Amino acid sequence: MELIAQLVGIVGDAHVLTGDDAAAYGKDWTGKYTCQPRAVLRPANRDQVCAIMRLASDTGTPVVPVSGKTGLAGGAFADGALMLSLERMNAIREIRPDARVAVVEAGVILSSLHDAAEAQDLIFPLTFGARGSAMVGGVLATNAGGSNVVRYGNTRDLCLGLEVVLPDGRVMDLMSELHKDNTGYDLKDLFIGAEGTLGIITAAVLKLRPKPRAYATAMVAVPTLGDALSLLNRLQEETGGAVEAFEYMPAEYMARLAECRPDLRPVFAETHAVNILVEVGATAPRDAAPQPDGSIPVATQLEEALADMLENGALLDAVVAQTQAQRAEMWERREAAAEITFSRLPLVDNDIALPLDAVGIFLERMETRLGELDKGADTITVGHLGDGNLHYAIWPSRDDAALIDTLREAVEDIVADLRGSFSAEHGIGLSKLATMRRRKDGVALDMMAQIKAAFDPTGIMNPGKLLPS
Amino acid sequence: MELIAQLVGIVGDAHVLTGDDAAAYGKDWTGKYTCQPRAVLRPANRDQVCAIMRLASDTGTPVVPVSGKTGLAGGAFADGALMLSLERMNAIREIRPDARVAVVEAGVILSSLHDAAEAQDLIFPLTFGARGSAMVGGVLATNAGGSNVVRYGNTRDLCLGLEVVLPDGRVMDLMSELHKDNTGYDLKDLFIGAEGTLGIITAAVLKLRPKPRAYATAMVAVPTLGDALSLLNRLQEETGGAVEAFEYMPAEYMARLAECRPDLRPVFAETHAVNILVEVGATAPRDAAPQPDGSIPVATQLEEALADMLENGALLDAVVAQTQAQRAEMWERREAAAEITFSRLPLVDNDIALPLDAVGIFLERMETRLGELDKGADTITVGHLGDGNLHYAIWPSRDDAALIDTLREAVEDIVADLRGSFSAEHGIGLSKLATMRRRKDGVALDMMAQIKAAFDPTGIMNPGKLLPS
Repeated sequence: MELIAQLVGIVGDAHVLTGDDAAAYGKDWTGKYTCQPRAVLRPANRDQVCAIMRLASDTGTPVVPVSGKTGLAGGAFADGALMLSLERMNAIREIRPDARVAVVEAGVILSSLHDAAEAQDLIFPLTFGARGSAMVGGVLATNAGGSNVVRYGNTRDLCLGLEVVLPDGRVMDLMSELHKDNTGYDLKDLFIGAEGTLGIITAAVLKLRPKPRAYATAMVAVPTLGDALSLLNRLQEETGGAVEAFEYMPAEYMARLAECRPDLRPVFAETHAVNILVEVGATAPRDAAPQPDGSIPVATQLEEALADMLENGALLDAVVAQTQAQRAEMWERREAAAEITFSRLPLVDNDIALPLDAVGIFLERMETRLGELDKGADTITVGHLGDGNLHYAIWPSRDDAALIDTLREAVEDIVADLRGSFSAEHGIGLSKLATMRRRKDGVALDMMAQIKAAFDPTGIMNPGKLLPS
Repeated sequence: MELIAQLVGIVGDAHVLTGDDAAAYGKDWTGKYTCQPRAVLRPANRDQVCAIMRLASDTGTPVVPVSGKTGLAGGAFADGALMLSLERMNAIREIRPDARVAVVEAGVILSSLHDAAEAQDLIFPLTFGARGSAMVGGVLATNAGGSNVVRYGNTRDLCLGLEVVLPDGRVMDLMSELHKDNTGYDLKDLFIGAEGTLGIITAAVLKLRPKPRAYATAMVAVPTLGDALSLLNRLQEETGGAVEAFEYMPAEYMARLAECRPDLRPVFAETHAVNILVEVGATAPRDAAPQPDGSIPVATQLEEALADMLENGALLDAVVAQTQAQRAEMWERREAAAEITFSRLPLVDNDIALPLDAVGIFLERMETRLGELDKGADTITVGHLGDGNLHYAIWPSRDDAALIDTLREAVEDIVADLRGSFSAEHGIGLSKLATMRRRKDGVALDMMAQIKAAFDPTGIMNPGKLLPS
């Protein structure tokens, strides 16, 4: 029987899409990795996933798992391959508030999980701009980061257990909700961040956290990145580590934002080099309880720290959100970043991590280097400064493949020199394969290839991604 | 050249121990896994480790890494093998207080790292009774847990980067200090908890945390384990998640303690079924600053919560430590556990994890089962209740291998039924191989064997441990 007919036999006619229907799934948000999948499969349950993988394994057919299609590294590029979407496996099986866990299927959309957790007065803290389309399977496969990592960690830190279908169709049950479990190699963390190259994540046990009872959010302008670090350290100290987000937006970003999103009002009358969005979350009642004068302790803590630093010249300006609408607008300014960055091509996008005290050094050295390599280039930077994570993108002056390579290597050189990472949270996919080959420890690359061969001996699982050939 | 002579050529005559000198290293704390190593090697640096592994690999000689010899699972049993001790590689290379990281060699003793962190007003939070002998390499290889996991996580959660020497002598450099790094498979977490079966951890980048400015510590008696959970949830809620430890000591443990350690005074005049050691750590200044009346807010919070619950009948009794000496004595009562448990043989020791609300169910069901299987058996239980981790040990009425197996399987049955783990923090080593074969997901076991084969194709790395043959 022909492959497509066999797939129809597994998932039903309505859930094997081909031609234009498949092309719609192949359309990539970045515009760089658009593809024509051979077919898009939408299984209803784990058994169907197993049957698909057994068939793919037997026939040597490549399978590319797809989630919300908002990854930036081309990890779901599936030209000529079977694209596997778990969108119908979107049950939130269980939320157990006392145990603070959610048991979910991989097709659950991140914002749906947020809503379900909030209904129990809890949060699933992982969040980023694309939360309305990203799915649990995708955030696990890419070990997504985002804006709250400074307090809650990456996806990896929020996952207790997994269920995985291997390339040969076998199920691996790692669905533990335990906080201690030393029974052999840590297979769970091998799948998290593997970008779908080792198997299909079908379900997960995720940690929930107490919902902060109050937030205090501010936009702050400081003279230098060094002052920003001092601000972070002081706020962490005074709040006992309650900083939820610490986001960096330099002057160039604010200028682009004003052009692209004139609906968002400027925060400060003047232009400042270093603008920070800071948010503090109060979980203890005593930090969140309204006082007789109507003030909220966590907001008072933030305001007092900022006022004190303003007086000492450590800050240039600061605005504390007084309403939920003001808080939302502050976040909208930050979350427009991907849209702004990808609005202009060609683009040399870099998602890098650096030791916290090396961020300023990196930017200075890059400015010098860029002056040497491409005087006409523009840059656009935004970052999760609390994690040392910069989204540093260059718009080169011309669309020249050699120049683009040179710029990419210049970034890599400085990142390597400062002992940073060339991919902090976006992963490798197709976009960073050359960098991976050049920069990753050679022994580590060798062992990754051996792990890949052990889990996926026929090489059908998201082929050509993550590991350089 | 003979093997020993070649080893002397690598590490020097003084650091290749044989005969009685080697036997001294083979002496096991539990008394169950004492062995005669062929030789004990004490390399001075990573290059010597590489040379040893190359030689071992070329000659097919088994190598067993050894750390503080306080593991309870026989993971360092090395009869006839080369035992590799990194005790001389004990440099704390760097403590960077602003970045909150420590860069250390694997031979650093845990309590030395504690001291070095405290000198910078920081902590390395991992702690347990054997901290004066356990080394960094050992705690990483076993993903050690201990008493502060409820707040800070297991060793895995406290490690940012690793350096590993593979069985063939190659070095894998994963020494990142970054909080975000998505560059391929998570090899770091594969080595953490691998019990030395995949390679030798030679150095690590570890997270440091702010030192709590004040602690409040109490012994509390509650009627049932359900009441203990309510106490934990209430204290977590009121302190915004600042519970550092939540340790369970049942009446039977307190009775044994009184026999074995008469120097430690009883806490309560009466006998209570459920005794809890709880500690809260205040990191924010406002929770730690002495008030005009001399009180400390975090202590007041704890006292008020306990007083309120005592009034409502949710507690039976409570004592809050008023001095550092009282706090230390409370901890001494808890940390005598291993000594008490291993003072009597034969012993069916179980280090299990359960969902928090299943701990009481487990104990009830085991009591019934034990009545059926061995009426004369005694039990001794102590646990990290905040993590659902029980050290549940049975002293059977007679030294009968069949009975011991039956008891072990009875525990496993109930643990599996409650979706718990048969090894929470002590690992597998030799002691839990049969359980691993019986209880671990078969597909997971298969993939573990394949990973082992990829990293250690000649099978020289701590052979016979962790993975059932």
